[in-house]
Amino acid sequence: MKLYDSTMAPNARRVRIFLAEKGIEVPLAPIDIMAGEHKGAEYRKIAPNSRVPALELDDGTVILETMAICRYFEGLQPDPPLMGVDTLDAAIVEMWQRRMELELFLPMGMAFRHTHPVMSALEEQVPEFGEKQRTIANQRLSLLDEELAGKEFIAGDRYTVADITALTAIDFFKLAGFEIKDDQKHLAAWHQAVSSRPSAAA
Amino acid sequence: MKLYDSTMAPNARRVRIFLAEKGIEVPLAPIDIMAGEHKGAEYRKIAPNSRVPALELDDGTVILETMAICRYFEGLQPDPPLMGVDTLDAAIVEMWQRRMELELFLPMGMAFRHTHPVMSALEEQVPEFGEKQRTIANQRLSLLDEELAGKEFIAGDRYTVADITALTAIDFFKLAGFEIKDDQKHLAAWHQAVSSRPSAAA
Repeated sequence: MKLYDSTMAPNARRVRIFLAEKGIEVPLAPIDIMAGEHKGAEYRKIAPNSRVPALELDDGTVILETMAICRYFEGLQPDPPLMGVDTLDAAIVEMWQRRMELELFLPMGMAFRHTHPVMSALEEQVPEFGEKQRTIANQRLSLLDEELAGKEFIAGDRYTVADITALTAIDFFKLAGFEIKDDQKHLAAWHQAVSSRPSAAA
Repeated sequence: MKLYDSTMAPNARRVRIFLAEKGIEVPLAPIDIMAGEHKGAEYRKIAPNSRVPALELDDGTVILETMAICRYFEGLQPDPPLMGVDTLDAAIVEMWQRRMELELFLPMGMAFRHTHPVMSALEEQVPEFGEKQRTIANQRLSLLDEELAGKEFIAGDRYTVADITALTAIDFFKLAGFEIKDDQKHLAAWHQAVSSRPSAAA
């Protein structure tokens, strides 16, 4: 088993944190995104969509997509549960994971891709779109602060993949100027708590 | 149990098809998107993000997000399986569902939102971005045609949520000018097969 990985790919960190929480070690194969290795012919044999991470099993089967890779490991080793403990909880965790991904991670990522100078070599940028996405992402951070007033973790009283998605987005997209504001006390307390877990070093 | 639904929301059709494949009937509560009902105070008590569909359980618990709703029903009634039959298969199905969602449904939706006149009242449009997304989505349709050369369904030899996501995207975003080209024989054959299932009427 081999995990294609990059420190420049926030999705790769999501998988590394997930594995650290499970205590699972997987050999990492680094892909140099800034050198364009993910768009090269060799890596496209693994991941035709050039996305990082990708998990290659010993029989050559490749699992693409962060959440599909996480679900594979959740099935292989259910403890500690990071994707829900029963039917309803699995749905609630998936809801929050997707809300963090689609409402926070995605607009932050679009703001980064479409406005940051470092991305101009990799992306046909549309700065007007990027700035609108920045506004949407900042509004979502404010809402997340309110949502965290009444609960310890994003999906409730247990650390889950939803926390991993939000943590990774907030940390990585500092690059694009996103930050937790001084008056976002609940968000700051949550961020401090999840960042103090050993997995956050992944 | 009540499913907030709209014929104008492609994600709502994904859930309706999923339920039809399972043979599950859930009372529908229609939301009038063109009249802005999804952005009104009453619906926002159910779905703060204004997204349709939403599932309200009898105890008042609300599950947002199409795939979270589907996962809930998959857990309640595993047969027929639409999200995988074991750990590896669940990962493979999730990979294909996400690839169809992120690589096809999302760019088609962005093209629709940012270029179609009907959306100008609901969205601050950035047509330049919408046109780039149109190109990306059309390239993905070509790739999907190639991918379907060697298999009956998108995730392999079984009908899954990945087929539901792609079918819904292709059908709904005809509105935005997307179509299966004459030379996309594999895609056309797949589309005809999945459209002939009774669930496609949902």
